[in-house]
Amino acid sequence: MNLLKFFNWGIKPISFLLFLHCFTNSFAQANNNKPYAEIAQQIIRTALAEGQAYRLLAELTSFGPRLSGSPQAAAAVEWSRQTMMKLGFDNVRLQEVMVPHWVRGPIEEAAVINSATTGTIPLTVCALGGSVATPEMGIVAEVVEVKSFEELRTLGKKAEGKIIFFNRPMDASKINTFEAYGGAVNQRGSGAIEAAKAGGVAALVRSMTTRLDDVPHTGGMGYQDGVPKIPAAAISTIGANLLSQIIAQEKTVRLRLKLTCQTLPDAPSANVIGELTGAEKPEEVIVVGGHLDSWDKGTGAHDDGAGCVQSIEVLRLLKALNLKPKRTIRAVMFINEENGLRGAEAYGREAAMSKGKHIAAIESDRGGFAPRGFSVETDSARLARLVSWAYLFKDIGADNIFRGGSGADISVLVRQGVPGIGLVPESQRYFDYHHSDNDVLAAVNERELNLGAAAMAILCYVVAQEGL
Amino acid sequence: MNLLKFFNWGIKPISFLLFLHCFTNSFAQANNNKPYAEIAQQIIRTALAEGQAYRLLAELTSFGPRLSGSPQAAAAVEWSRQTMMKLGFDNVRLQEVMVPHWVRGPIEEAAVINSATTGTIPLTVCALGGSVATPEMGIVAEVVEVKSFEELRTLGKKAEGKIIFFNRPMDASKINTFEAYGGAVNQRGSGAIEAAKAGGVAALVRSMTTRLDDVPHTGGMGYQDGVPKIPAAAISTIGANLLSQIIAQEKTVRLRLKLTCQTLPDAPSANVIGELTGAEKPEEVIVVGGHLDSWDKGTGAHDDGAGCVQSIEVLRLLKALNLKPKRTIRAVMFINEENGLRGAEAYGREAAMSKGKHIAAIESDRGGFAPRGFSVETDSARLARLVSWAYLFKDIGADNIFRGGSGADISVLVRQGVPGIGLVPESQRYFDYHHSDNDVLAAVNERELNLGAAAMAILCYVVAQEGL
Repeated sequence: MNLLKFFNWGIKPISFLLFLHCFTNSFAQANNNKPYAEIAQQIIRTALAEGQAYRLLAELTSFGPRLSGSPQAAAAVEWSRQTMMKLGFDNVRLQEVMVPHWVRGPIEEAAVINSATTGTIPLTVCALGGSVATPEMGIVAEVVEVKSFEELRTLGKKAEGKIIFFNRPMDASKINTFEAYGGAVNQRGSGAIEAAKAGGVAALVRSMTTRLDDVPHTGGMGYQDGVPKIPAAAISTIGANLLSQIIAQEKTVRLRLKLTCQTLPDAPSANVIGELTGAEKPEEVIVVGGHLDSWDKGTGAHDDGAGCVQSIEVLRLLKALNLKPKRTIRAVMFINEENGLRGAEAYGREAAMSKGKHIAAIESDRGGFAPRGFSVETDSARLARLVSWAYLFKDIGADNIFRGGSGADISVLVRQGVPGIGLVPESQRYFDYHHSDNDVLAAVNERELNLGAAAMAILCYVVAQEGL
Repeated sequence: MNLLKFFNWGIKPISFLLFLHCFTNSFAQANNNKPYAEIAQQIIRTALAEGQAYRLLAELTSFGPRLSGSPQAAAAVEWSRQTMMKLGFDNVRLQEVMVPHWVRGPIEEAAVINSATTGTIPLTVCALGGSVATPEMGIVAEVVEVKSFEELRTLGKKAEGKIIFFNRPMDASKINTFEAYGGAVNQRGSGAIEAAKAGGVAALVRSMTTRLDDVPHTGGMGYQDGVPKIPAAAISTIGANLLSQIIAQEKTVRLRLKLTCQTLPDAPSANVIGELTGAEKPEEVIVVGGHLDSWDKGTGAHDDGAGCVQSIEVLRLLKALNLKPKRTIRAVMFINEENGLRGAEAYGREAAMSKGKHIAAIESDRGGFAPRGFSVETDSARLARLVSWAYLFKDIGADNIFRGGSGADISVLVRQGVPGIGLVPESQRYFDYHHSDNDVLAAVNERELNLGAAAMAILCYVVAQEGL
């Protein structure tokens, strides 16, 4: 669109003013009688005009992917500590914890090797996180395609010795992409277990995305005691569609799969913690956090670099605005969300033993997109209290406060009875990037990231002043 | 984030179910007693799962930028006609109109030429749309920086013979980026006029974006009868900041500016129109449209390829779902929104003379981002009626229906008394791309584009059934 037509092509100025009016619309209501409304506006304006979250994210992602146990994760831990020190946070410290240490190998290959019509066809795959390697020569076996564990079980003996290809797509018709993810991700998480139980020799899983491209999406997978550990890989959606077509045409299709990943001994790492100490009730704590580790594809810009820098930005914003919270606001960069939750468990253990009291825990781990609200795990009275503050988030369109899951890293606190709150951003784009080479700084919009930080800062400040 | 932790690390299944619950939250309310709720859900699901808008946008943007009068615009007109025919729309036709024909020249150069400390420094610029060229040898003159027309006027004689550098940024602290745009765009639209009045020899305008990059943003500019026509160019935000710093350091800074753009005679072009003819009141028409032309930077993916393909998709979706509207729904691809509004005027003239009646006009021209609501120009009774249907858009977060400007192409109809409705998407990213090389297909997310089309399809259908 082009406002200039209103200047240049003879339309009256009044039309222009009416037109401009649409840009100010309902966002410009006076909020004078509403507590914290002015402070919320200040936080939003400051975050948008002088926000540092994107600059911090550029620094954090510059180290590369931050898988637990990796040198890059160690760099991120030290960067977080130094950043919090430089920003003048209180009580900056590391909370040490041992983390799993899985490494992707240099070779990840898959190919259709006996296609009668087209010859050898390479497929784009990557190992799922936690997978064992294939034998050094790779696995060569026939592939069978299934859409569900139920379908796999009906195969009986036909699955034995085969590579099991789990090809149920995320349901694109779902409005909320996390719901679509929830409906497909058991293939990734338990595919290797179910395939092995059926006698399969490897699992190949359609990438968890609704986007059609040649970028495989990794992610956590599990094994089960007493069930053979077989290699598991993700295949790009383009590769999955192609493979499915070849199977439909040729019926008997053989694949070669080679993965060289391995699990090393647990490695030392740490959560990174810094605070704004409460002016009146310092022993009462509001946690705001994200997870510092990422998968080893892309650079974890949305997952969850965004949540980390937003949490740091919450404290930085409040300091910059000279807002002194009554209760302590504590930023926690949790380590090892993706493949162990060891950081969350360590933090939870300390919280359970400490004399201080956690008033609330807020996590951002659904990407750095425009915020739409908060998903809350607590009792009805507290939920109602939070909803009563929804007007503070209306101007930025983030006033949808509802009952639902909060976040993985704060789930340990939630089980201890702490109200858990998850920032809910617009979900449409998340799985375009998630756990893949696409999850890089360029996929994050600075203003959207800033608005998420502002939403969290407002909520933290209000809860720090009012309790919950 | 990684749901798998709930499978693999010993957290009870109940936690997982609670966690998944957050993905279904308030979006899953039963809408059984609400008219059109089921149809709205069907439209949304179909748009998300089987939408064609992105495929159409890929085709449309493949021709290149579509500035009025260009071969690419002609290709877009013919593509629209053929696409509507292929999709089986009724009464597909061209509405011919002559359009302005401005062309950017091959040379667009600017440089600081006398910097004592750093030598010649090139700056990234592009001509503003409609600008005259510089003399063939370029313009060499001292540059003066101003933040406003008021400041320019206070310069008096000091502005004479100078290149006037308008460097007031868009105000990033505004939540709505269109409001920030509205506060800065007079520099682009009237900068050349005001600079010439002050005795300036050229206007150099900071690009209309809050993003810091080296990509200049073009856009419409005007001249005024009786005021000399001087060349006008946009400078990238990085270039603007650099130039401002050099001026602050060196006080007297000389620039060389060369532009080779020109205005050719008006060229023939056309609006493209296709319909779903109303089953009961075919003479009553709901217009849904966008503009087919774009600026000649990028490929006009968001501005306004998105609005065009969404409008086509509205009709396609209703046909695919076998929904037969009582009133006619007419898709209009308006030509020449960016630098003339000739298509809108031609459509308006015909509408004023025709026997049919326009019930409403809906435009999408704010980018293909996740929809957040509609901005409406009509009387209070009709606005209230539209607001009463807001529940249909709640699941997709597009239920903010408020009084405000609608769209440039439908403004002619609005002046005839037709209710005008603008689709309002999330605005944070729009000016990253707007009128620049950044506005390409890759900047558009398929799901967000589909949701906008779904929102318009729901509204069109309800108004077609119920009137307004």
